[in-house]
Amino acid sequence: MDILERIQKLVKDYSEKNLKISVAESCTGGFISHMFTNISGVSKVFERGIVCYSNQSKIDLLKVDPRNIDKYGVVSEQVVKQLAYNIRVQSNVDVGIGISGIAGPTGGTPEKPVGLVFLGVSTEKDTIVKKFNFKTDRITFKRKVLEKIIYFLEELLQKNF
Amino acid sequence: MDILERIQKLVKDYSEKNLKISVAESCTGGFISHMFTNISGVSKVFERGIVCYSNQSKIDLLKVDPRNIDKYGVVSEQVVKQLAYNIRVQSNVDVGIGISGIAGPTGGTPEKPVGLVFLGVSTEKDTIVKKFNFKTDRITFKRKVLEKIIYFLEELLQKNF
Repeated sequence: MDILERIQKLVKDYSEKNLKISVAESCTGGFISHMFTNISGVSKVFERGIVCYSNQSKIDLLKVDPRNIDKYGVVSEQVVKQLAYNIRVQSNVDVGIGISGIAGPTGGTPEKPVGLVFLGVSTEKDTIVKKFNFKTDRITFKRKVLEKIIYFLEELLQKNF
Repeated sequence: MDILERIQKLVKDYSEKNLKISVAESCTGGFISHMFTNISGVSKVFERGIVCYSNQSKIDLLKVDPRNIDKYGVVSEQVVKQLAYNIRVQSNVDVGIGISGIAGPTGGTPEKPVGLVFLGVSTEKDTIVKKFNFKTDRITFKRKVLEKIIYFLEELLQKNF
């Protein structure tokens, strides 16, 4: 199945189980929400998305602790854990997705290079953050993150959460 | 110029004038934020996006008055005015964009058909809402809204706000 068919299947499966998803995305800039909302009937599954591009928006809208931003940076396991957890709780959904990374081409450092991204998935049971490196152009970067998110959502269904 | 070149020029022009934009989008589902954040350097211009898909997200995150939703519906001049105004004020930016419409193929009524969309643009000077009808598929609908938003943002620059 191509990516669109996989999203269609996810929306159908989540809809049938009455499961809802919200997304807090920084470096993907709305792409994850956009790809889900291309599907008719997604409003039964997709509750809200927040494109928390600035640091202030992460603090204002996702209650990210500014001390975590100072200590670990916005591209960090700690901040993404808060994004995923807090978007789930604030919107009262079954799955919260959090994303923060460095899409490039600028903004990288030796410690945090272009392509680095942390992806968080929060359910009532657990909040897990995984680290990836997709060094490529901005648009391919967004697509690679989307593929991982879809994989995580498929996996959650298979595991019955 | 094609659409990507026009967005690149907007980002460059807004950046040079140190002007910032935030977006509260419902039916376009993150597409407007996505298209802006494809541009490297956009973080100087794009502050945040909210994909306020559910009614509750419009109330929680954009302080839309539930009485306006009851009285006029979420696809209305009154609600979009609040989206555009409140995203501007909450994020402390120069331009707030608000969008609510019926992407279809379902959800239309004789009074509010598929394709109906209200677009709001808020600056310190004024908050204006315009009504359009783009009856087409979901993806072309998003593109047509994007073109209008770009046109409004170009126009604002020409008029010096």
